[in-house]
Amino acid sequence: MLSNQLHNGLETAKLLWSRIPNSEDGEVDGGSLLRNSNRNTVESLDYEVIENYAYREEQAQRGKLYVGYYVAVKWFLALLTGIGTGLAAVFINISVENFAGWKFALTFSIIQRSYFAGFVIYVLINLILVFSSVYIVTHFAPAAAGSGIPEIKGYLNGLDIHGILLFRTLIGKIFGSIGSVGGGLALGKEGPLVHTGACIASLLGQGGSSKYHLSLRWLQVFKSDRDRRDLVTCGCAAGVAAAFRAPVGGVLFALEEVTSWWRSQLMWRVFFTSAIVAVVVRTAMGWCKSGKCGHFGSGGFIIWDTSDGQEDYSFEELLPMAVIGVIGGLLGALFNQLTFHITYWRRNYLHKKGNRVKIIEACLISVITSAISFGLPLLRKCNPCPESDHDSGIECPRPPGMYGNYVNFYCGKDKEYNDLATIFFNTQDDAIRNLFSAKTIHEFSAQSLLTFLVMFYTLAVVTFGTAVPAGQFVPGIMIGSTYGRLVGMFVVNFYKKLNVEEGTYALLGAASFLGGSMRMTVSLCVIMVEITNNLKLLPLIMLVLLISKAVGDAFNEGFL
Amino acid sequence: MLSNQLHNGLETAKLLWSRIPNSEDGEVDGGSLLRNSNRNTVESLDYEVIENYAYREEQAQRGKLYVGYYVAVKWFLALLTGIGTGLAAVFINISVENFAGWKFALTFSIIQRSYFAGFVIYVLINLILVFSSVYIVTHFAPAAAGSGIPEIKGYLNGLDIHGILLFRTLIGKIFGSIGSVGGGLALGKEGPLVHTGACIASLLGQGGSSKYHLSLRWLQVFKSDRDRRDLVTCGCAAGVAAAFRAPVGGVLFALEEVTSWWRSQLMWRVFFTSAIVAVVVRTAMGWCKSGKCGHFGSGGFIIWDTSDGQEDYSFEELLPMAVIGVIGGLLGALFNQLTFHITYWRRNYLHKKGNRVKIIEACLISVITSAISFGLPLLRKCNPCPESDHDSGIECPRPPGMYGNYVNFYCGKDKEYNDLATIFFNTQDDAIRNLFSAKTIHEFSAQSLLTFLVMFYTLAVVTFGTAVPAGQFVPGIMIGSTYGRLVGMFVVNFYKKLNVEEGTYALLGAASFLGGSMRMTVSLCVIMVEITNNLKLLPLIMLVLLISKAVGDAFNEGFL
Repeated sequence: MLSNQLHNGLETAKLLWSRIPNSEDGEVDGGSLLRNSNRNTVESLDYEVIENYAYREEQAQRGKLYVGYYVAVKWFLALLTGIGTGLAAVFINISVENFAGWKFALTFSIIQRSYFAGFVIYVLINLILVFSSVYIVTHFAPAAAGSGIPEIKGYLNGLDIHGILLFRTLIGKIFGSIGSVGGGLALGKEGPLVHTGACIASLLGQGGSSKYHLSLRWLQVFKSDRDRRDLVTCGCAAGVAAAFRAPVGGVLFALEEVTSWWRSQLMWRVFFTSAIVAVVVRTAMGWCKSGKCGHFGSGGFIIWDTSDGQEDYSFEELLPMAVIGVIGGLLGALFNQLTFHITYWRRNYLHKKGNRVKIIEACLISVITSAISFGLPLLRKCNPCPESDHDSGIECPRPPGMYGNYVNFYCGKDKEYNDLATIFFNTQDDAIRNLFSAKTIHEFSAQSLLTFLVMFYTLAVVTFGTAVPAGQFVPGIMIGSTYGRLVGMFVVNFYKKLNVEEGTYALLGAASFLGGSMRMTVSLCVIMVEITNNLKLLPLIMLVLLISKAVGDAFNEGFL
Repeated sequence: MLSNQLHNGLETAKLLWSRIPNSEDGEVDGGSLLRNSNRNTVESLDYEVIENYAYREEQAQRGKLYVGYYVAVKWFLALLTGIGTGLAAVFINISVENFAGWKFALTFSIIQRSYFAGFVIYVLINLILVFSSVYIVTHFAPAAAGSGIPEIKGYLNGLDIHGILLFRTLIGKIFGSIGSVGGGLALGKEGPLVHTGACIASLLGQGGSSKYHLSLRWLQVFKSDRDRRDLVTCGCAAGVAAAFRAPVGGVLFALEEVTSWWRSQLMWRVFFTSAIVAVVVRTAMGWCKSGKCGHFGSGGFIIWDTSDGQEDYSFEELLPMAVIGVIGGLLGALFNQLTFHITYWRRNYLHKKGNRVKIIEACLISVITSAISFGLPLLRKCNPCPESDHDSGIECPRPPGMYGNYVNFYCGKDKEYNDLATIFFNTQDDAIRNLFSAKTIHEFSAQSLLTFLVMFYTLAVVTFGTAVPAGQFVPGIMIGSTYGRLVGMFVVNFYKKLNVEEGTYALLGAASFLGGSMRMTVSLCVIMVEITNNLKLLPLIMLVLLISKAVGDAFNEGFL
């Protein structure tokens, strides 16, 4: 057990230092407030209870009342962690969707008169958002860069990297990811939410932040690293539960991916926290339904509901699904390899030059991303709206100010839409919803999907490692669902008799890419089921994951 | 870790010897074939890999090809375990539902002429089924009595009780549970299915049964207890997955309840096995839909689908739900206490008298159960069919030869039904489906539910510990959903404005009783969600489980 844990710890440390930018030099180059603190400190934590005479004496001295109080505080803190993480997730979601929704609405209204002016506005808004994010990270909370999952993994396995669970990191993470995700970069808010959950848990566990005079004495009953670690585990699961609205997936993520210390008693508390998150997020979304939250809440509690997708699958479909798995393994392994090399170069060369370079880098990537996502759809010819999809209840083209399929962008006539703009010139959540959507068989052309795949893949590789909070789940889902839908289009053409939905293949593609790059298994499976609310696809998702993980493992190590 | 495991092992052993009838004297009194084997043997298994020179030398000598073969066989055996357990579950289900369906159809057709003749036939069929079950167990496979979960728990924690994983036990378990469940006793087939899965896994892991000349040499690559244990864990999860058609629940059950040895690598294999089970069961049910399996397959893949139940819940409902939790804790703890005492008495007094007493006991309980389930509905006055439920699409009274609500039993006019017969004179699966059903607000009277609760609770307590294969899940769900529905009826009357479904309360009641007696947490939660396909109720199920477990823990230890 001990050797196993040590091995895990070392593995994580290796991972941390090799893969994650800014966790090392972030503190060196970071804000002046951090200069006086320990530099490059990695403390090791001791989670083992040492059962000596003093310990037992202390245990014996504690009254029954104190033990009851102690247990009550433990559960109360888990409750608070759940509520806090849920609220943080709702806040981030509302902010991102409002920024993005407002940005797209404004751009769409301006391009009625001038496409050039619209382009300039679009680029500028993105630039401002990304700049604010990278500024916050570089000058205020250097530990908030990246996804944060490897750092939390390290912490839970006994390595306390300085600064990762501070109040400033929490704030930097929340506002930074609003900027980076709202600014349209090729990254997600899911990883940062896990870090956010862990920060909230850690701050609660130490009774608040004493630096900012927010500490509460009566909460300070946790004396050991172990208690704090248990709460951080809860926070970590809460983060996943909040990010994907997947409580069971959160528990399994914490269990499978993050911690190598696990007890059955802890499981129940972790589960409790995740369920609280689900309640909080659900309540907030119900409250938002009445239109109090602006652009937020169109998606419902299930993020990408595919329960109206394919009902069943035939034996013949297993081959194309296996092909999706192989593609996922190959592209995932390639993604890991590319990001590894770029990150290595960044860390050893680019980011050594200081904060200004980091800011310029992020802004440059933002401008390139904006230019591509605006410019490429302009070059694409519009398609006439398909007649056959009319009875599915999906309007074509999309009415102004709405979300959904068939975006009218730079199209002449009324009954036309731009399929590349439908996925590229859109928020990521909506793009994925469009790719997963059923009953839209003729919506996308293979050319557009291929263009998007190549461009977005490149952008995701380049964006990974910039000094902003950045998760890899949503980009992975975007990439995977694109080639998944491509395969689905071939299947639709090839097996004409079968009742095939391209959206189901897109979902399998998403699972395969995440499996091929992150190499998660059970938790990923459950998360995919929970975000799509389609239990029937579980065996297919598993098949695809098994293949993509096996293929990926043949090349290199996992990403997370 | 080691001390923890030892503690777990000892705990399990204590549990085994104190709680489980027949695991001790089963072998002593068992069939003559067993007389020559070791009596009362509890061997301890060593799952720790001893990394000495010889071990490493052996590892080094193995070629890459052999390692590949070894891994392939591991996965292949997991696949076979999944297929085998799935097929066993389908076989048991088809048999039970056909026996029970045929029994009820025959009885219904006879009572058209004479209720007395119908009663005699009903009692006789049940008696024959139960007799065959108890005969198989006492004379052929003594280790097949009971649920088998505690024995498997013991095995996975390092205690090899002789006979629990033999081929004869597997056969005895399958046919015994067909008899006991088909014979209408107050017990379920879920526990035995877990044992069945474990047996299949163990037999595969040792390359077949050499005694019956069914062994395969090329499968015999597993040399250590550890490999066999891993496979048995897979089998155990497969059993739960097959019993509840809940693959994720199966994995969590194995993780939370059964084993204290767990590695992340194993998790993926366990999950794979569970998913295979889901595929097998699903395929078989699809095949049965065309009517090839007689009375089987009316329920669909989701056993008790409540997705058309309550959509949302109000704040006022939390109090009655908490009350359900408290009732569950109290009744569950009482159930544990009563069964403990009765089992103690049985083991030390009744079952010492030999097999004949065991057979007489089981037959007597069968006759009493039949008499009560037939006789009590006779005494109950029929109700007129409610007008208000007409638009829900549920026919009243139930047409002859169908399953569902509103059973016409000993009723005069056409438009009448017997609410007690609807739950009592029915298969357990159908009774639960009726109790969970939505849009049937006025179906049951409080008097009938109370009568059923008292009688069934008593029967379940008395039946537990007889020498037949017997699970406690389904009886627990029956008991719990009865008082849950009772509470639901009060809520419907009390909060008239709210959109309350009694079926949802029945579901919460079921969760609360299982929580109060078995004290499972996460896995039970997930199983309840998977068997009802209603993710929205997760927080409510959790709330109820938290309360019932806490209340139950105040009185005694858990059941499983």
